[in-house]
Amino acid sequence: MPLVHLSLLRGKPPAYIRAILDGVHSALVETYGVPVADRFQFVHQHEPDEFVYDADYLGVHRTDNVVFVHITAGKWRDTQAKQALYKTIARNLGADPGLRQEDVQVVLSPNDRDDWSFGNGLASYIKDD
Amino acid sequence: MPLVHLSLLRGKPPAYIRAILDGVHSALVETYGVPVADRFQFVHQHEPDEFVYDADYLGVHRTDNVVFVHITAGKWRDTQAKQALYKTIARNLGADPGLRQEDVQVVLSPNDRDDWSFGNGLASYIKDD
Amino acid sequence: MPLVHLSLLRGKPPAYIRAILDGVHSALVETYGVPVADRFQFVHQHEPDEFVYDADYLGVHRTDNVVFVHITAGKWRDTQAKQALYKTIARNLGADPGLRQEDVQVVLSPNDRDDWSFGNGLASYIKDD
Repeated sequence: MPLVHLSLLRGKPPAYIRAILDGVHSALVETYGVPVADRFQFVHQHEPDEFVYDADYLGVHRTDNVVFVHITAGKWRDTQAKQALYKTIARNLGADPGLRQEDVQVVLSPNDRDDWSFGNGLASYIKDD
Repeated sequence: MPLVHLSLLRGKPPAYIRAILDGVHSALVETYGVPVADRFQFVHQHEPDEFVYDADYLGVHRTDNVVFVHITAGKWRDTQAKQALYKTIARNLGADPGLRQEDVQVVLSPNDRDDWSFGNGLASYIKDD
Repeated sequence: MPLVHLSLLRGKPPAYIRAILDGVHSALVETYGVPVADRFQFVHQHEPDEFVYDADYLGVHRTDNVVFVHITAGKWRDTQAKQALYKTIARNLGADPGLRQEDVQVVLSPNDRDDWSFGNGLASYIKDD
């Protein structure tokens, strides 16, 4: 059920962006138990005027390769699962497309089981729908 | 108070997109009791490289016409209201612009009454503001 | 930790947009106690067909200069802090770039301390990470 929005500066090749999306999804499968087929991802490419990030917040040194992975997902995951997700996304994106770990930012937005309709007008995760 | 983000592949005519927005808003009015004037909607058109969806997740067969309706709305609606919303959005978009029910995905993100300022620097839904 | 999405009609000069982003961030620093370096903002410019707003909802008269500031931020702020944030954003944007107060809309989406990873694969606000 996660919905993933990837925000980054415009100009990366499609294969580079695809590698990021693949790595994020693999991390969700591995750490959140998301089914492989539960993959829904949107990319927002921004011009420099449209994309403001601090290059040193919390002592983490970010570059123009920085990516923001904003994931809307069910709120029942605990802190340990979230920590595993962050580590695995950073590891995967470090392996391919070779992002620096400092350039991988992740934000989660929680919602509920009955907040998802994956077609046919049904609340997909509610049994008695 | 809902804020609606519509995400779809680029290339549909404006009238087609407008029909989707109209159908979503009518459904919110009908099932969520949203005032007709409470309409705020943004459209995000993506290139194929920027838009990843699974064509079969949960046995629902999606096509490139698939649309994602992401609605930020007050968290006090119950499951029954959400189910009515999903059904009505799918029905409306099936009628116009003629979307297959499988191609209509809806995601809700909850927030609170004091999370909205519709101008003038005021918390619009808080009485003592 | 706030993540700010600014949505507006396409066509404003970069300096105008920058003034909005500056004013929103100053308000977060002033009213939410956000560190100056905690600044992450994305701009979404829309064509008229992609941007629907009601020009009179709640008796507030909006124009095509209307902006929507959607802030994902920790849910522990109280109503008073939110009210101060709204007032200060409207005031700042009124001063520069000179927006009418009616044209400033703010929406908050809440999340938790462990929902943020600002690099290095760590949950940035969790001590024992």
